Amino acid sequence: MAAERFVVTYRVTPDDARSIEAHAKDICLEETVEIPEDAVPASHWEQGIVGIVESIDERPGQPSDYDVRISYRADIANNEIPNLLNVLFGNISIRRGIKIIDIQFTDQQIASFGGPRFGVDGLRKALNVYGRPLATTAIKPLGLSAKELARLCGGYALGGLDVIKDDHGLIDQHFHPFEERVSRIQDAIRDANAKTGRITHYYPMLAGRFDGIEKQAAFAKAQGCFGVLIAPLLIGPDTGFYLARKYDLAVMTHPTFTGTHFHDPRHGMTPAILLGTLFRLFGADISVFPNYGGRFTFTEAECQDLAEALRGSMKGLKPAFPSPAGGMTIEKINAMVDAYGHDTALLIGGALLRYSSDPEVSARAFVSALEHAVKSKRNQVQ
Amino acid sequence: MAAERFVVTYRVTPDDARSIEAHAKDICLEETVEIPEDAVPASHWEQGIVGIVESIDERPGQPSDYDVRISYRADIANNEIPNLLNVLFGNISIRRGIKIIDIQFTDQQIASFGGPRFGVDGLRKALNVYGRPLATTAIKPLGLSAKELARLCGGYALGGLDVIKDDHGLIDQHFHPFEERVSRIQDAIRDANAKTGRITHYYPMLAGRFDGIEKQAAFAKAQGCFGVLIAPLLIGPDTGFYLARKYDLAVMTHPTFTGTHFHDPRHGMTPAILLGTLFRLFGADISVFPNYGGRFTFTEAECQDLAEALRGSMKGLKPAFPSPAGGMTIEKINAMVDAYGHDTALLIGGALLRYSSDPEVSARAFVSALEHAVKSKRNQVQ
Repeated sequence: MAAERFVVTYRVTPDDARSIEAHAKDICLEETVEIPEDAVPASHWEQGIVGIVESIDERPGQPSDYDVRISYRADIANNEIPNLLNVLFGNISIRRGIKIIDIQFTDQQIASFGGPRFGVDGLRKALNVYGRPLATTAIKPLGLSAKELARLCGGYALGGLDVIKDDHGLIDQHFHPFEERVSRIQDAIRDANAKTGRITHYYPMLAGRFDGIEKQAAFAKAQGCFGVLIAPLLIGPDTGFYLARKYDLAVMTHPTFTGTHFHDPRHGMTPAILLGTLFRLFGADISVFPNYGGRFTFTEAECQDLAEALRGSMKGLKPAFPSPAGGMTIEKINAMVDAYGHDTALLIGGALLRYSSDPEVSARAFVSALEHAVKSKRNQVQ
Repeated sequence: MAAERFVVTYRVTPDDARSIEAHAKDICLEETVEIPEDAVPASHWEQGIVGIVESIDERPGQPSDYDVRISYRADIANNEIPNLLNVLFGNISIRRGIKIIDIQFTDQQIASFGGPRFGVDGLRKALNVYGRPLATTAIKPLGLSAKELARLCGGYALGGLDVIKDDHGLIDQHFHPFEERVSRIQDAIRDANAKTGRITHYYPMLAGRFDGIEKQAAFAKAQGCFGVLIAPLLIGPDTGFYLARKYDLAVMTHPTFTGTHFHDPRHGMTPAILLGTLFRLFGADISVFPNYGGRFTFTEAECQDLAEALRGSMKGLKPAFPSPAGGMTIEKINAMVDAYGHDTALLIGGALLRYSSDPEVSARAFVSALEHAVKSKRNQVQ
C-alpha cells in the first residue's frame, strides 16, 4: 500500500533565472532528504520519500508567480507538530520567494492532531452565550499588582464579559507572580459569577521555562480556569497545545513573535495558514489576531481568510473562534460584527481602560454595544 | 535602587508619515504595557516599566532609517527565554520596518542565561583537536534504516570526523526510531573510536512532543552522546537549551524555521542576533548556519557578523563555534578556512555522500583537505 501523502501549495516566485521546475524540485529535496538530487538513493524515489511535485500552475496575470503543489509522505512529519513545521517550511524559510497558501492534510493527520476540543459550540455551551459574538478582553498593563489585576477582572466579570485573558506579557514576574495572580483573579471572577448568575471565564498565560510550564497548567486547572492563553512560537509550537489537552483546558492562541512569517507577500505563510489552519489543527479554540484597521499590518482580505480557515469546513474538525484584536474600540463594534458575524470572539483591550476607570462600566458598555450591533444587524436583515 | 535595564538597538524605517519619535514610542509601549500612552498609569512611567528611548540616530546617507536604542527593565523579561523574545520582538513582529541589530544585556542576565557550557575550549579539550577547524557532518538522508545510518557514522568516525550530527529531519520516524538510531550509531562510533584512538562525537536531534523530548535527552546521555542537535524555534526556544543543561549535553543549534526573521533587511533581526547573540546566550556551543555561496540567502557580511557574535567578547561568556553549512564541499575548504579561521566547525553534508560511496574515504578526504588548508595558510603567514 502506498504511504499516505499530504499536499502543500507553495506560491513560488523564482529569484533567479532557473526554471520553475528546478525551484519546485529544490523544495522537494530541501524539505525532506536535504541532499543533492544525484545523491538520492533510487529506493527513495520509488518509495516517495522525496517530496513530489503534483502540479505547477502559472498565476493568471502574474507571469513570475506559480502555484506549486507538492506532496509529502505523512510519516515523514510523524504527526508531531515540530516536525510537521519542519517539513512544511524548515530550511526553505532561509530561501526566498516561497509562500505557503494552502495545505491539505490526510484524514489520519486530522485525526491525530485532533483540532479544537471545545470549538465554537463547546465554548458557547460552557459560557451559555448564544446569538452574538463573545465579548473578551486582555487584562493590562503588566506591572500592576496581582490584587489590582484581580480588581479589574472582577469588574469586567460583573460588567458581563465572557472571556478574560491575561495580557500575553503577564508571565511569572515578581509584580504579579503566576500562582498569586491566577488564584486572586479566579477568586474575583468566581465571586462575580456568583453575583451575576452569568459565566465569565479566565484564561491565564502559560509561559516560562520547560520545567515550570506544566506546573502552571496544572495550577490553572486546579484553580478552576476554563482555558489558557498560549503563544505557540514562544513556548514551543507543541508545548501549550499538549498541556491544554492533558489538563483539559480550552486554548486561546496569541500571535506574538509570529509576524515575520506573514511579512513578505512572497515568502513565509499566510496568516490564514499559521494562525488559522495550523493553530486550529493543533487545538486552538480561539485564535487572536491583529485586526485590519488597528495598529498592525494585516489586510481585510487576510483577516477574512483567517476567519474562514478557523471556522470553515476542515474534514470534520470543530470550528474555532476568530478573535480580532489590536487597537479595537467600542466604537468599532458595529463594523466588526458586520465584518465577522456572530461566531467571533471580539477582543477589546486597552480601550476598556480608557473608557472608564470602573471596569464594570467599561465591560457593560462593551456588551451593550455588542448586543445593540447584533440587534440592529438583525433588523436590517428582516 | 533603579531596576536594571537592558538595551536593544532597533533599526527603524518608518512606514508612514509619523515622526521617528512616534515610531520609537510605539515600540516602547507595544513591547511592554501594550496599551495607549494616555492609559499608562503615572507610576508605570516613574518606575520605568514602559520601554525608554535612550537615543535616536539617523543613519548617515540613509535619511529614512534610524537606529533607535530602547531600554527595558530586565525584570519584565524575567530571565526566561520565551518572555525575553516576547519583549525583544513580540507584537512588533507583526508591524513593519523594525529590525534588531544589537542587544546589550545586563551582567545579571548574562549570568542567569549562562551561555555555552563547553564553548570552543571545552569542545576542543573533549575532542582533543587543536590548531584546526572541526570537521563535522550531518548524517543523511532520512528514510535510510538505523543500521544504514550507523554504518555511515562508523565510516565517518574511522575517517576522522570530529562531530557527526543527525540531519535535522531525522526524528522519531519509523524508518529510524530515535532510540534504535541513537544506540546503533553511538555503538558504531564507540567501536570506531576504539580502533582509531581518536574521538568522534555524535549529536542526535532532539525533537518531538513535549512529553517525549526529555526522555530523548536522557536516553542520549545514557548512551554516551556528548551533545545534542536542537532546532530552537521548532521545539520551543527554551526546551532544548534547558534539557541540554539538565543532562549535561553540549548543544549544536540548527537554523531550520528561523529564516523569516532574516528575510527582510528592514524587519526582523539579523542572523547575528538570533543565531549568534541569542543562541550563544541561551547555551549553544556550536551554531549551524547557511554559509554564503551555497543554496541559501545569507551574505558574506551577515555570516561574518554571525561568526563574530558567536566568538567575540560578550561579558565573559564562552565563545561558541560558528558552523557554516548548506551546500558546502571539500573543494570549498580552503576558502572557508580563509574566511572563518580555525575556531570554526566546518560542516559538509550531502557532498560527502557524493564524494565516495565509502564514508571512511569521504571523511578522510575532508580531514586531509582541512589539514592541508590549515598548513598552506600557515605557510602563507610565515
